[in-house]
Amino acid sequence: MNFSEQDLRKLAGDLLVRHGVPPEAAALQATVLIEAELRGLPSHGLQRLPRLLSRLEKGLAHPTATGHQDWRRPGFLAVDGERGLGPVVVMAALEALAPKAAETGIAVAAIRNANHIGMLAYYAEQAAERGFVGVVLCTSEALVHPFGGTRAMLGTNPIAIGIPTGADPFVLDLATSQVSMGRIHARALRGEPLEAGWAVDAQGRPTTDAEAAKQGALAPFGGAKGYGLGLAVELMVALLAGSDLAPEVRGTLDDTHVANKGDLLLLIDPRGAAAEACGLAEYLDLLRASRPADPGRPVATPGDGMRARRAAALRDGIDLPDALVAQLNGVRAAMA
Amino acid sequence: MNFSEQDLRKLAGDLLVRHGVPPEAAALQATVLIEAELRGLPSHGLQRLPRLLSRLEKGLAHPTATGHQDWRRPGFLAVDGERGLGPVVVMAALEALAPKAAETGIAVAAIRNANHIGMLAYYAEQAAERGFVGVVLCTSEALVHPFGGTRAMLGTNPIAIGIPTGADPFVLDLATSQVSMGRIHARALRGEPLEAGWAVDAQGRPTTDAEAAKQGALAPFGGAKGYGLGLAVELMVALLAGSDLAPEVRGTLDDTHVANKGDLLLLIDPRGAAAEACGLAEYLDLLRASRPADPGRPVATPGDGMRARRAAALRDGIDLPDALVAQLNGVRAAMA
Repeated sequence: MNFSEQDLRKLAGDLLVRHGVPPEAAALQATVLIEAELRGLPSHGLQRLPRLLSRLEKGLAHPTATGHQDWRRPGFLAVDGERGLGPVVVMAALEALAPKAAETGIAVAAIRNANHIGMLAYYAEQAAERGFVGVVLCTSEALVHPFGGTRAMLGTNPIAIGIPTGADPFVLDLATSQVSMGRIHARALRGEPLEAGWAVDAQGRPTTDAEAAKQGALAPFGGAKGYGLGLAVELMVALLAGSDLAPEVRGTLDDTHVANKGDLLLLIDPRGAAAEACGLAEYLDLLRASRPADPGRPVATPGDGMRARRAAALRDGIDLPDALVAQLNGVRAAMA
Repeated sequence: MNFSEQDLRKLAGDLLVRHGVPPEAAALQATVLIEAELRGLPSHGLQRLPRLLSRLEKGLAHPTATGHQDWRRPGFLAVDGERGLGPVVVMAALEALAPKAAETGIAVAAIRNANHIGMLAYYAEQAAERGFVGVVLCTSEALVHPFGGTRAMLGTNPIAIGIPTGADPFVLDLATSQVSMGRIHARALRGEPLEAGWAVDAQGRPTTDAEAAKQGALAPFGGAKGYGLGLAVELMVALLAGSDLAPEVRGTLDDTHVANKGDLLLLIDPRGAAAEACGLAEYLDLLRASRPADPGRPVATPGDGMRARRAAALRDGIDLPDALVAQLNGVRAAMA
């Protein structure tokens, strides 16, 4: 079924408010979910809402917590998320970091005990729009096998980077797995097969069956290099945030455990080196205008596709799978 | 020909000293080159020395400069390398950053106008051995084509990450291209072909000819994701260091231009969250012991292969191609 962005935002916000989330926090959580839908990332969209509502009901997510912030050092903010909603805890950290980064040039927040923070691009873009280089990292359940391995031992450990360019910000957001587990779930929800090379089953055999992959492991992207980057994220986040390592992580894909993954948010202030003066936007235009391998597919830069999909979805509405619509209506009916 | 590490270290150091480099700086530059040889990365080894000596002769590299350091903000060190030797300028920045990062929790150095810094793993490891999470990024000449593109528009833009684990440090060092241009040059020097998918020629056609690839472009690693990461490094380094973007960069592969690429060095102090307590080393051992896809190839973690190759080369010596030996002897004879 097709919905307008406003209708979905209202639906998600209302359901969160009815679960005790204050209106402003509910609006932020809803925005992060809807922005994922708008940008063509349903894996991080409303399919996560029923589970989150269940987590609120069970006390695994705290409706009003914004995180306890401790400036462990002048540039190092340690955050205990106190089971708060991921977007609420991260944005509170970003608001605290921003003035500090503007003062010292660089600052980092290391966050544990917050719920799933959703699409990382949202925070990278927020950082870039405030004039900062923003780097966002987080960990997850063990879902990815090592390069040359067969068992799920690493999180999907995404990396997002936002950079002000003088024009549209550069926004990169990638899982260090070939695909996110959310995308596997989205395929499973739609009954669609996976691409070859995305995943192995529980026995470590390559599979294109989305249901089998949910019990198996995702491949790291880009072979040994992507594995190395994912592992660096795994270690760095656990070390700095004091969160758990993938084999022990729970709580981003279930409604039975506290979320014990970690999140890092790094801001660097480029002031003194204005993006405009560096010609970043002109350089990105040069890339877009450079000769493509396939004449029908112009070269893009990270964020281009996302912006185009967002504009189209704002105009044409957002398609949700019927199963998800039924699930959300069920929750709403149960609360009426 | 086979040489001991000590002999090569002495040869490189002597040649640098005879070009006016102070003994301590010459020893550091020699160490970074020899460490690359020891770890099986000849692309960043002695094949770069003749060019560097020529750069010293021509004034493109300054023999005694260590870089002008300006603390633009309490956590942001802006460095004008003053055409100094890359390792000398970077290690001077690291020495300045370390006490600051220990105090504020995080600090960054943005370096321009330094010569090629060589193998990034060296600095990442230095950072980790001092107890810091270290991230090293740098840019280069335009050598890599965008994902879906055909023209060399980005640097190989490597990323190195060092993390203390309580045992051997985790050391990741990767080019965001499929391979480094140094490796293409090493293959060309040895008359060996490339693997398919590494590069395109000057006309944008896939090639396995190392000489043709030198005139063409390298593929980014890992498709769109690796391209995105390489581009993030490109933009971030240029913006923060005030260095040039790839199409304008010269001076790391020639002896005719000043080096106008940039380098970033980021240190984060994890103290308060000891690596030992986090179980990082035990987790890395779990990965190594996990079931491999090929029973004959155990799972490795970044740095394992490097350490094994280093130990073997310290024992068995370092093989240099005859052409390189002749070139180095020629330089030595000319100076006698």
